[in-house]
This record gives sequence, C-alpha cells and structure tokens, in this order.
Amino acid sequence: MNRQLVAQRHDPYPSRHVQQPSITPRLDPVVYGEDDGPLDPELVQSYEDDGFLVVPNLLSPSEAFEVDAEIERLALDPDVRARPQSVLEPDSDALRSLFEVHVGDGPLAALARDERLAGAARQLLGSDVYVHQSRVNLKPGFRGEVFDWHSDFETWHTEDGMPRMRALSCSVLLTPNHGNNGPLLAIAGSHQWFVACVGETPDRHFEQSLRRQEVGVPDERSLRALAEGGRIEACMGAPGTVVFFDCNLMHGSNSNITPDPRRNVFIVYNSVENALEEPFAAPAPRPEHIASRTFTPL
Amino acid sequence: MNRQLVAQRHDPYPSRHVQQPSITPRLDPVVYGEDDGPLDPELVQSYEDDGFLVVPNLLSPSEAFEVDAEIERLALDPDVRARPQSVLEPDSDALRSLFEVHVGDGPLAALARDERLAGAARQLLGSDVYVHQSRVNLKPGFRGEVFDWHSDFETWHTEDGMPRMRALSCSVLLTPNHGNNGPLLAIAGSHQWFVACVGETPDRHFEQSLRRQEVGVPDERSLRALAEGGRIEACMGAPGTVVFFDCNLMHGSNSNITPDPRRNVFIVYNSVENALEEPFAAPAPRPEHIASRTFTPL
Repeated sequence: MNRQLVAQRHDPYPSRHVQQPSITPRLDPVVYGEDDGPLDPELVQSYEDDGFLVVPNLLSPSEAFEVDAEIERLALDPDVRARPQSVLEPDSDALRSLFEVHVGDGPLAALARDERLAGAARQLLGSDVYVHQSRVNLKPGFRGEVFDWHSDFETWHTEDGMPRMRALSCSVLLTPNHGNNGPLLAIAGSHQWFVACVGETPDRHFEQSLRRQEVGVPDERSLRALAEGGRIEACMGAPGTVVFFDCNLMHGSNSNITPDPRRNVFIVYNSVENALEEPFAAPAPRPEHIASRTFTPL
Repeated sequence: MNRQLVAQRHDPYPSRHVQQPSITPRLDPVVYGEDDGPLDPELVQSYEDDGFLVVPNLLSPSEAFEVDAEIERLALDPDVRARPQSVLEPDSDALRSLFEVHVGDGPLAALARDERLAGAARQLLGSDVYVHQSRVNLKPGFRGEVFDWHSDFETWHTEDGMPRMRALSCSVLLTPNHGNNGPLLAIAGSHQWFVACVGETPDRHFEQSLRRQEVGVPDERSLRALAEGGRIEACMGAPGTVVFFDCNLMHGSNSNITPDPRRNVFIVYNSVENALEEPFAAPAPRPEHIASRTFTPL
C-alpha cells in the first residue's frame, strides 16, 4: 500500500505520523462480552476498571515448572539462540526475549490453548480468538534490563495493522516475581487513554526496538498524567500466577540486579474479528514470528 | 609509591591484583564502641547484625525538604553541572550524582555536622570522624539507572587507600523511596565478608566507574553466595528517613522508570584513626572531591 493510500485510510488511533504527543479517550470497549467463561463477574469488573487482573496460582506450581523447564531447554539450545525469534539484552549477550514459543505440540502450545487462559480471553473479548504473538521475557538475574513504559497496542496498531483495541495479554509467571526482580508495573486505568507518540517508524524497526524501544515511546508529560490519574502497581506472585492485561494498558518494568531471574511467558490473544490489516504507520508489516497473520481460531 | 613498594606493603584486603575472586571473613569490628551516642542499644545491635539500619523520620519532612531544595538549586545550576563533581547517567545527560556537597556553610554542611548523623557515626566507629565523601544520587524519574552490586570499601581501599573497615555511610532520603523507584537494596549480613574482585584498576578509573562500574565488580557466584547466606532488603521510607550502612555492605539499586525521582544524599564518615594512605591497587589516588584527604575531625 503506498503512502497516498495509507494517508487516505481512516485511522481511529493515529500515532507516529503526528506532530505532537496527545492523550485521547479509548474508542473501544474493554470487555466485549462477559457472560460465558472461567472468570467470575467481580474479576471481569476489576479487569475492566484497572485494565489488568492478577490471578494468583491460576496454574499449579508443577504446571508452571513444566513450562519453565521447556523454556530453559530452548534458552540453552544454540540453534534456538541463533534464530530471529531470539532477542538479546541491549548491553550484553544475555537472552532477553524468545518469540513464537507456542508453536508445535509441547507444553507451551498446550498452555496457549488452555481454557483457563484462552477461555478467559474469549470471555473478555466476546469472540473466538487466535494467538497474535507469544514470547518469553527472561529478565535474567544480575543483568535483566528495563522495559520502558509502553502500550502494546500502539505498536501492534502502527507496525502490525491491528485495527482496534480488542486484544489482551496473559503473562504467566514462571519464577517468583517479587518487588526487587523487575516485576511488571502497570498504570491502573491507563487503558482508557490512547497516547499518540511522535516519530516515524524506521525500516525494520523491530530488529532494534525489541532490545530497547526508541520509537513508539510515550512522552514523559503524558506518562506523568496517566500515573497521576491512576496508580502504579507491581504485579507480583508465585509461579503459576497469571496476569491478564488489556492491549492498551501502559506498562513497563525495572531492571533486575537480584540473582533471581524474573521469567514470564506471554500469550497475546486477539479477537478473530480484529484481524490485522496493513500497518497504520510503518513501511512494512513485522514478520510472522512477531505478529501472526494466521487468523485461525484456537 | 612505585609498584615494588606497593607489592611489599601488607594488604589485609587484597583485591584487583588477584587471580581469582574470593570471599574471606571480615578482619575488623563492625561496631567499635557503642556506649555514648544517639542510637539505642537495640539499634546498634541491629546495625551490627545486618550491616545496615533504617531509621524512619530521623529528620523531619521539613528538614529533608530544605536539603532537597538546595540540591535542586545545585542540580539546575549550569556552572555546577560543568564541574567535575557532577556525574551524568551512562545513557543520557541526566544528572546521576553530585559529589562534595557538604562543603561551605549551607544546609548540606549543617547536615554533615548534625549530631543525629555524625554523633551516630562517632558512636558506631568509636572515635572522632571526618567526612571521607559526600554525594547526592539523584536517580531521576523515567531514566534513573542501575547501581550494580558493590562494596564501597572495596573501592575506597583499592583506589583511595582506606586501610581498614572503619567507615560508614548515612543515606538521607530526600524523596519517598518506595518499592518501584529504585530503593537501596542491601544484602543483610554481607558486611561480614570481603569479596576480592579481579581486574586491574585503569588510570583515572573514576571518570568512568561513577557512571557505570566495570572494575571492582564482584563476581556473580560470590554475590549469589552472599544473597543465599543473607537476605536482600529494600531500604524504603519517607523523606527524612536515614539509612546507616557499613562501608563493606554489599548493596546496589535497580533502575527507576516511575515518574518519581529517588533522591538521596550520602554522607560518608571515616574514623580519624583510619585515615587514607596510598591506594592499595590503583595507579594514583582519586581526587579530593571524591575521597577527601583532609582528616580534620568534625
């Protein structure tokens, strides 16, 4: 699609090709249909209000351990580390993230189809869902680095062509996430606001942005406004705890200097009614292993 | 002093000019005399056991505010920022640290002489004391970066020639230090062990090490052993809270992505009976504004 056509397409959430940062209200529901699914009504309400929900011990410790053992096996495999799915830390050769972990038929594929996760996603998004992205963030001990504040949707919309806010992430805690090893920090209520970011998306931006993001970064003034209007909460828990969070939740995490790795697997579910189009503000779509274009319902 | 002479001098705590990392027991007392001073016996005992002590609200909020206002004035002064006392963050031009803040006769000089701090230092160190170093660590909001694990004594011994472990730091909290803005992390009990680090000190090392330390860095195996033998504790509190910590306590801090700056002023007291000599493992002593050689008692 050429620039002319991109410019003519209606964009409900313009970002990057804008002159100024701005905060505008969300145009989409947070919860699309809540009647049928594994989450109790008060949990659905809490998710809707805050934009995220921490469910302690949704998986058993032994289930979390089985998934973690598979991640460890993958992380130690030199063939896996050499694949484009592997992303290193910005200042060291420690493994930062591993993408597309749900394919095949191992414990991670089973996890992505698990009713406790996929069923909750169907419930909140009010439709069938498919896996838009899966990844592990390893945040290794001693050297785990920052994830700066961001809305996933801002990137998925501009770089992947996700049209509306009708997707969510499940973060499954594989190691203890405590106060000092870089737990997920969420700004409660921030999912109700879209922060437009300034700066054109460079070609093949993902090759750099997954190590340290510098485009699609919200400005400090907007972040301060969101933090003052909400509250910053650390999502902590034991292995097996699951954090559900809306695609537009402003989140990030600090570094990890403790010896304890903070390892979580993320499964991103998108509604089949919200399938990707052409990117809204990028020269080309990101590769399949980062943003799937296989929209088959789970 | 030439290399030959350095090699012949007795070094109770060899580091850097060693082949292997090692952990050896501390050879010096932690508390040198506890009878006379502002700290109650149970607080002295807690300091001795853990290697640090958090005293909530030792200063009033308004006293902390007055000091903080002076820091803010200094941090905004372009002349101050241009001085060698100013250290910038490794990845941005944000002010990371400001050294030698206790000179002159403003609120910071008064703070260094305050009996609640200096008197406690005299009590714990069992002698008159002088200010070895003073600094502010600003850990700005959004961009405050990591301080990796280290023992201050390892550097003060190798680079400044501090002979024995008979010094302590007072960290005065100027802004709220909470769980998410990079509070001081201490490994309780680690002060009882000296970790020798591998790697020669480069010439003028301080110009780089104060932004990000790469020599005098303990190895991960030793850190893991200390953390398993003790516990990692985050030193949190409201403005005016003071953390006293032993010169050999293993400590560090995570990044700060929150909007809230984590600003603390550190006053380092050394016993007058422990005055600096030639460095034990560095080509030349560090400058006066980092390691004072004016041993006049307060």
